[in-house]
Amino acid sequence: MWIAELSRQTDVPVATIKYYLREGLLPAGEAVGATRARYGEAHVRRLKLIRALVEAGGLSLARVRSVLAEVDEESRDLHEVLGAAHGALIPADLTASDESRRRVDALVAERGWRIYSESPDRVFLADAIDALEKVGYHLDDELLKIYASAANEVAEAEVANLPDGDRQRTVEDTVLVTALGGPVLLALRRLAQQNASAHRYGSTQY
Amino acid sequence: MWIAELSRQTDVPVATIKYYLREGLLPAGEAVGATRARYGEAHVRRLKLIRALVEAGGLSLARVRSVLAEVDEESRDLHEVLGAAHGALIPADLTASDESRRRVDALVAERGWRIYSESPDRVFLADAIDALEKVGYHLDDELLKIYASAANEVAEAEVANLPDGDRQRTVEDTVLVTALGGPVLLALRRLAQQNASAHRYGSTQY
Repeated sequence: MWIAELSRQTDVPVATIKYYLREGLLPAGEAVGATRARYGEAHVRRLKLIRALVEAGGLSLARVRSVLAEVDEESRDLHEVLGAAHGALIPADLTASDESRRRVDALVAERGWRIYSESPDRVFLADAIDALEKVGYHLDDELLKIYASAANEVAEAEVANLPDGDRQRTVEDTVLVTALGGPVLLALRRLAQQNASAHRYGSTQY
Repeated sequence: MWIAELSRQTDVPVATIKYYLREGLLPAGEAVGATRARYGEAHVRRLKLIRALVEAGGLSLARVRSVLAEVDEESRDLHEVLGAAHGALIPADLTASDESRRRVDALVAERGWRIYSESPDRVFLADAIDALEKVGYHLDDELLKIYASAANEVAEAEVANLPDGDRQRTVEDTVLVTALGGPVLLALRRLAQQNASAHRYGSTQY
């Protein structure tokens, strides 16, 4: 397809597509003559991924570039790529207390989760636990286990639900579901919190 | 306590506290003479709430102001305040397809959730579902139910876990847990996704 059709299919303006091409976020199309190029389904998928990360994920283009670099890392096995792509989704400047790191490691070990060894999600999680503690809210082990169990149910269903496809497609779909499924889960949690608080604190209005 | 002690207890610089006082985000202390004021536990809690919303929640000060206005709305009952405070946490310029709105309403009805009637979380959820559909990922009813069930388990445990306290305290704690518990849940989901993908796609490294 020509760039106009690519724009139509993805709802991304031609000028923005050209910008992504110049920035190397989108691979070049197949050149046809000196000034035209043809694009394919891979470009459609890649553009949707970029827009999802920018618009729904709120990522900067620099961060999107890191995620895409991990997605395109052909030398790693699929599991490593997913872990690394997750890593690129989260801020790099994390610190966390030893206590929270220890709790995270214990939780991962208890659940027997196979985690990409360099995954920054462990530190991210420990940092998030620290943030709760810092405001005086102690996240006890029982509640942490409930979070982990709920997260596991969601993740298993999400991964089971991924369509079969080639490696590139699978990584892209996983990153999309991670980035765009998060808001769905958090919105449902807020609705469920309102329901739980209506039951605990009472309300005539619902 | 004096402002220096308030700063020490909350890790917020004195200059920042003074800025919040000027901006009306933090209520004035009890005046002692012309230039000094005493602060109490309510100020400590309020400062922690502001910092949590700004630092972990990534909210602008304008958005923080909206959340605090809802928290301080004494005329509403507690359940309404929580719904409204949730609303202030999310962007206001949401649109969503009729189809997704209908799915959200059906889900809420099926679960029998009592939701604050003006809660923007319904639209937020419908918009998040639309975002997935737009990138070609269909969130089927079965997966949506799994999200809802997991969200409900988490929310019930979170609300049950809130300490008993006065109305003000309860609202503040709920907003804190909503804002700071989200990253915990999402980090656990990413770790669980890595585990699920290791099982589905195989990996020797973990």
